[in-house]
Amino acid sequence: MRLSVTFKMLVLTVVGFCCLHKHSTAQNIPVPNKQQLAWQQAELGVLISYDLHVLDTSKYVQNENRITPIANYNVFNPPNLNVEQWVLAAKTAGAKFAIFTVSHETGFSFYQSDVNPYCMKALKWKDGKGDLVQEFVDACRKHDILPGLFVGIRWNSFFGTYDFKVNGTGEIQKKRQAYYNKMVEGMVTELCTRYGKLFEIWFDGGGSSPDRGGADVLPIVKKYQPDCLFYHNTQLAEARWGGSETGIVNYPCWSTFAYPYIGAGESAPKEIGANDFALLKTGDPNGKYFMPTMADLPLRGAIGGHQWFWELADEKHIFSVNHLIDVYKKSVGRNATLIIGLTPDNIGLMPQPDIDTLAAFNKAVNELFGNPIASLKTSGKKMELEVPKGKKASYVILGEDLQFGQRVRSFQIQVKQKGSWQTAFQGSSIGNKFIYQFPTESAFNRVRLIINEAVEKPLISKFELY
Amino acid sequence: MRLSVTFKMLVLTVVGFCCLHKHSTAQNIPVPNKQQLAWQQAELGVLISYDLHVLDTSKYVQNENRITPIANYNVFNPPNLNVEQWVLAAKTAGAKFAIFTVSHETGFSFYQSDVNPYCMKALKWKDGKGDLVQEFVDACRKHDILPGLFVGIRWNSFFGTYDFKVNGTGEIQKKRQAYYNKMVEGMVTELCTRYGKLFEIWFDGGGSSPDRGGADVLPIVKKYQPDCLFYHNTQLAEARWGGSETGIVNYPCWSTFAYPYIGAGESAPKEIGANDFALLKTGDPNGKYFMPTMADLPLRGAIGGHQWFWELADEKHIFSVNHLIDVYKKSVGRNATLIIGLTPDNIGLMPQPDIDTLAAFNKAVNELFGNPIASLKTSGKKMELEVPKGKKASYVILGEDLQFGQRVRSFQIQVKQKGSWQTAFQGSSIGNKFIYQFPTESAFNRVRLIINEAVEKPLISKFELY
Repeated sequence: MRLSVTFKMLVLTVVGFCCLHKHSTAQNIPVPNKQQLAWQQAELGVLISYDLHVLDTSKYVQNENRITPIANYNVFNPPNLNVEQWVLAAKTAGAKFAIFTVSHETGFSFYQSDVNPYCMKALKWKDGKGDLVQEFVDACRKHDILPGLFVGIRWNSFFGTYDFKVNGTGEIQKKRQAYYNKMVEGMVTELCTRYGKLFEIWFDGGGSSPDRGGADVLPIVKKYQPDCLFYHNTQLAEARWGGSETGIVNYPCWSTFAYPYIGAGESAPKEIGANDFALLKTGDPNGKYFMPTMADLPLRGAIGGHQWFWELADEKHIFSVNHLIDVYKKSVGRNATLIIGLTPDNIGLMPQPDIDTLAAFNKAVNELFGNPIASLKTSGKKMELEVPKGKKASYVILGEDLQFGQRVRSFQIQVKQKGSWQTAFQGSSIGNKFIYQFPTESAFNRVRLIINEAVEKPLISKFELY
Repeated sequence: MRLSVTFKMLVLTVVGFCCLHKHSTAQNIPVPNKQQLAWQQAELGVLISYDLHVLDTSKYVQNENRITPIANYNVFNPPNLNVEQWVLAAKTAGAKFAIFTVSHETGFSFYQSDVNPYCMKALKWKDGKGDLVQEFVDACRKHDILPGLFVGIRWNSFFGTYDFKVNGTGEIQKKRQAYYNKMVEGMVTELCTRYGKLFEIWFDGGGSSPDRGGADVLPIVKKYQPDCLFYHNTQLAEARWGGSETGIVNYPCWSTFAYPYIGAGESAPKEIGANDFALLKTGDPNGKYFMPTMADLPLRGAIGGHQWFWELADEKHIFSVNHLIDVYKKSVGRNATLIIGLTPDNIGLMPQPDIDTLAAFNKAVNELFGNPIASLKTSGKKMELEVPKGKKASYVILGEDLQFGQRVRSFQIQVKQKGSWQTAFQGSSIGNKFIYQFPTESAFNRVRLIINEAVEKPLISKFELY
């Protein structure tokens, strides 16, 4: 399998193994690189989505917006813009990282580009000197949030790019496609060299690749941001989309995958799109590529909503805290990284109802999982914990030492009831984190973890009761 | 005829007549409006052409450049840029007006547009604050040159506009076309409202019109710059191209035309393009529309050159003064307005060899036509001038009082040789200026002008000997 991948992929994989060799003996299972490990261990991030159409308070209709340039880019004139407040909202949520949309599908870029004139230089706002990317990374670093950037290159209604392809015919199309690809490469170079260390770069809907007529972005990111999670193009995905925008992934959800990429648009392998993205939701325990899972959802996704972008009088779509906790358990608690979509409003602020919900969510997560009533860190195949007297265990949280790969394939959680061990849960994937909730009526004083099967020596880093 | 034209045209024509009524009795021949009269009387202007490709010193190939976006717009970084020096070059040439290319076929706009991001705001140069249009109009006013602007909207390699049409297919093309048209209208509004009174606005290759799917620029110019010569779109031409870029027009070259427009691209009436633009070169003495003629040529057009834009080591193409004088006689001297194309170089200066040639040309014009040896201003049908003793007449210059239209249809220049009148020249069109050069061997002491035919009372404003 490895011999069939590109040289670049091979190099990356070898680098991964080299890092690993410092810590462990040789092994045959995929292991995360530095950025993948950090990204999985971060567990919770936010995506802050902003684009010109937020400012005009019109209804966002993606199909229309993708092909219709914004009538007046100087609609960008938010009177109260405060990027630090956005980042504080991420902090309030308990996020470890935040990702900001440098550009989305309008193609407008929220920084001082020297290769894309359709950027903040064009604005009257701040006399053309605005740079939301700079404000964003500065605020992130001030508040100990890891900054990532989301770059829309698949769609660009201003330039006329649709699903990577510059609309047009004949030589004009060819020349403008070549120009667009170079422009995108220039933008990625700017973003990778101007703003310090990035935690993740997220190509919206994926990136294309030169062999498919697209921009050649992978070598740029690898050159200038070797420790940045690359998500993703048709050559490489260092994380994978979880197959829905519900924030929930399947159980099991493996951190490994059979392909080094997840594709993008028409170029995605058909198997990946089949059965409503079943492969993305589940991953592949036998996959040769380490590829952790992103569970993403917009905060404003309740009661029929699904708003990545702020719209007027849309607060009703903010998810309840209960729903978000459920999502958390079914994403972070299933070995995925949860990314919640936030969006500042037309005056430039993260709306207070959204912040209140994020604060309540974080409080609830901390109340549930802030302090274990019992914990153990060991590496055996059978581990036991006692429920302290006077306490009741509602959850088990398990975790593997993921730097050495996802090793466990089968395990049992058992409880001692009336003197005998009963199997409460028969599981497969653990990964970075697995959360099991006991039935509420359950009463027991001991909990046992049994690893039944593992592809290498199981390395359990977390066995906790809450 | 008049009833067949659009309401807008009718209004313009009526306005023209109203102005005229102040000065004269009603008449049935076309007369110039204020800007047409000023433009004809100006006689000599320059077009200063500049675009991004000048800066990279590469060979300009129009067909390729029209469809190929400039790789790096930040190539615009002329170390010695001095727009006042350009305008002084126009002054040196004796030009009464100068026109600057706000944008040419790259689509890049040399000012601070708020509707076209592909403009000087995008540049690193002067920290994005450059505005060549402002510098240009300021320098013009300082040096008593009338400023005009040339706007390229027919081609835009950045946006993908080719012959007015945004390249593309389906809904994307439609949306981008609509956006482009609005952008163009916005640019024209900016140019017409920010820079004071303009002498001429020149739409490169013409403008389109809404009924042909193009931008609606005519009402904008008429609203904000009512006294500005509108050249031109598919609805109106207040001047016409002389049918070649040689600087030479036919004799006769009438200031009237049978159509209110000269068309643009595919939308031009077939008759206008026929016989190598014969109609444009000659005009139509019976045409119902006053439409004076532009004779344009690039200064660098000699020995196989035809360079509107500066290129490296291209001085050999600068026309000789003798050639320019010949052109002057065959343009200004045939009732056209001569516009000489100048182009600053890659460091931002009008090259010295070009300036030297312009200075020598102007000196030669002044030596030839600066001081008449005899002159007469009258309104008869037969006028006579005596050659002062000791002088020799080489030229006759005639002119009509053009505010009342071009009236003369047939005239004779006669000289008295050996006691009897001999016809030296049998002519038709006089218009703003007619220059006749006597054969060098000619010897005479009296010159007579006889108007044989005129559609209204002939109003001769100029009858001079040089």
